[in-house]
Amino acid sequence: MQIDLGNALANVADPGVARADLEEFDERVAAAHERIQAGRRDAEFGYAALSLPERTDPAEIRAAVQPFEDAEAVLTVGIGGSALGAATVTDALGGVDHYALDNVDPAHTQALLEDLPLAETAVHVVSKSGTTAETLGNFLVVRQALADAGVDWTERTIVTTGEDGPLRELVDRHDLPSLSTPEGVPGRFSVLSSMGLVPAAIGDLDLDALLDGAARSADGLEGSLFDCPAYAYGAVTTELAERGAVVNAMMPYAEGLETFAEWFAQLWAESLGKDGRGQTPVRALGATDQHSQLQLYRAGRPNTVVSLLRPRERAPCPVPETDIDDLAYLSGGDLGKLIDVEFEATEASLAAAERPSIRVEIDRLDARGLGSLLYGMEAACVMAAELSEVNAFDQPAVEWGKQAARELLRGADTTKTRAVRDRSALPIR
Amino acid sequence: MQIDLGNALANVADPGVARADLEEFDERVAAAHERIQAGRRDAEFGYAALSLPERTDPAEIRAAVQPFEDAEAVLTVGIGGSALGAATVTDALGGVDHYALDNVDPAHTQALLEDLPLAETAVHVVSKSGTTAETLGNFLVVRQALADAGVDWTERTIVTTGEDGPLRELVDRHDLPSLSTPEGVPGRFSVLSSMGLVPAAIGDLDLDALLDGAARSADGLEGSLFDCPAYAYGAVTTELAERGAVVNAMMPYAEGLETFAEWFAQLWAESLGKDGRGQTPVRALGATDQHSQLQLYRAGRPNTVVSLLRPRERAPCPVPETDIDDLAYLSGGDLGKLIDVEFEATEASLAAAERPSIRVEIDRLDARGLGSLLYGMEAACVMAAELSEVNAFDQPAVEWGKQAARELLRGADTTKTRAVRDRSALPIR
Repeated sequence: MQIDLGNALANVADPGVARADLEEFDERVAAAHERIQAGRRDAEFGYAALSLPERTDPAEIRAAVQPFEDAEAVLTVGIGGSALGAATVTDALGGVDHYALDNVDPAHTQALLEDLPLAETAVHVVSKSGTTAETLGNFLVVRQALADAGVDWTERTIVTTGEDGPLRELVDRHDLPSLSTPEGVPGRFSVLSSMGLVPAAIGDLDLDALLDGAARSADGLEGSLFDCPAYAYGAVTTELAERGAVVNAMMPYAEGLETFAEWFAQLWAESLGKDGRGQTPVRALGATDQHSQLQLYRAGRPNTVVSLLRPRERAPCPVPETDIDDLAYLSGGDLGKLIDVEFEATEASLAAAERPSIRVEIDRLDARGLGSLLYGMEAACVMAAELSEVNAFDQPAVEWGKQAARELLRGADTTKTRAVRDRSALPIR
Repeated sequence: MQIDLGNALANVADPGVARADLEEFDERVAAAHERIQAGRRDAEFGYAALSLPERTDPAEIRAAVQPFEDAEAVLTVGIGGSALGAATVTDALGGVDHYALDNVDPAHTQALLEDLPLAETAVHVVSKSGTTAETLGNFLVVRQALADAGVDWTERTIVTTGEDGPLRELVDRHDLPSLSTPEGVPGRFSVLSSMGLVPAAIGDLDLDALLDGAARSADGLEGSLFDCPAYAYGAVTTELAERGAVVNAMMPYAEGLETFAEWFAQLWAESLGKDGRGQTPVRALGATDQHSQLQLYRAGRPNTVVSLLRPRERAPCPVPETDIDDLAYLSGGDLGKLIDVEFEATEASLAAAERPSIRVEIDRLDARGLGSLLYGMEAACVMAAELSEVNAFDQPAVEWGKQAARELLRGADTTKTRAVRDRSALPIR
């Protein structure tokens, strides 16, 4: 992963960061780096995620999925960090038809189960606690659908869960293939572990190259933002947010990275959005969203930094010659050239409007490049949290709703269920 | 479409709008309504979009697609408003395997063309001007792929374009089935016209019901926000933005409406993001994103209103009984009940954190419900623009980049191409 901060500087953009401010700020980056390294060394909760490239054993994952090597499709049953990392990897790299039940929409669940070749599908159930309501509810529906189709669910199911809980009991009772969730790693930081890599392993993707790319980003962690792309990204976004860029539009110029932008949004929102701070991640897609969101980012409120992400190399796709005169300028070109020209034109158009952008590049959209990007953004996020003095690894604000939902389903009468029932209403019909 | 403003009121949320302020503000809504009605009556540019329910002729669209009634798949070649509306309709209602080439990513284009049954695919090319670089570049690639597969492209192509331009010439030269883009309607407001309905018509969806649902929203336009859900939404989001809610997270609780949230983002960003104003639309998905973005919306910067959208009725999907004790509370329930409980718990959890939300409901996720929602949000957007005193229908800020890209492709040496070449750089490697 490489970063270019040129268009986030104060001589280009407002909000922007002066070069001198960055140099001053670099002392705080050095101190935060020491804190991060200590956390990694002691395998502290959360910081342990930044050691996954060396802790994750791809051979163990390959062995666990061995019964499913001929699967036609993989169905991940999980939610949040238990599904999004896995989808990010297969959407970027292909390898297998991968579907996720990461919601509890009845129409969607039914339609997906009707379409899937259930007898040839590997079902990957993922929940660290083994009690996540959406995941377990969906799993019960999937298990019934397999039974209805005459398929032995115990032959088609692999589980990733913690050391105990209902899912672990299920594994033990039915002798299911299983993997353990990594110790000390929150779901949104788990993509480089068993939680993120099972579908990729079934798709025979190169896990070693993915982890190697991540390891290279890990090796590149240095105590100065000028020497470390990950920290540069985390530090500059933090400084820009302080100066008013409270929105961060992550805009990859590659269809395969659309899910990555979702993954990034989860990472950024849940890790940094606390104590009245944070930066709202917006998923965009280049070049498509140039025809929509760009109007806002160039001419709306000056509260956004755009992260322009691309692979430096692309597969060729020549544009054929044409007899239409107006299109002669496209003929004999390449779609890759077109999208890269649009990337550069958009970057310049933001600068011309004095709006900040950050360029993020990987060499290629392959396993190594993706590994470096995923790890780089995790390290960037932890750096941003250190500099903002928030805990990157907790998510206290989501608990209220989870608990209220459980209490409502149990028919309890509590402060929370009463708050739901006695809500403020002003209906307009 | 129904709206509930209860949780956006100042006695619940901060930012919030006092009931008295809404009543005062209602005079401005009445005046803006008069302006909108006059624009519709005179078919002024943009306002004409709000007359599409009565202007669009579903029989004409059905007749044009008649050669493709047995198509196995539809491929829309278009970008921005020329693709997103069509995808929103088929992603919500099904009916046909619909794919879009709405980007110029070479890897994606190649992979999609390899997967499609080209001889059985209807190709719908959409560009109002007939000159959009991405669309025409992709179309040239698709035409070549059809030829390589031994398919006569003139038998598989339907075009929606304006009265002249390269695409219209192509239609005339090869006698292709075609439709005209509606007069006076910007792309992002075109979903209820030929531009948005061709794939739906090929999928035999009920266009009459869709337009009827839209017409009912149109009939409901009244000069008071207390009597008109669309205006209530537009007015309250505007007032909240003025009070600091500069982000609007559109969060449908239905997988089928995920693309709707993208469509909404384009509508909201491009129509309102100008003159230093606007509100950043963020696409979210319930219940999935409760496990990520909700942390930010409850505990991050107090700059967000969450729009919670759901159908009131859902298909049944019972959760089977289970022998796992910890999950007994799920057994015998229904996934639809689960997602609705989560909707209500999330709404209450935002209120408990004093963060504003707006409830948006449709009766069912069917053609009529979708039509009412699409039209309702377009009218809401036009109302928001009137109240913010911006032009909803132009997009001047996207032109700079488009022009720069064209000049770069032509190898020109201009102010813009020099700005691209001489960009500010601070690479971190």
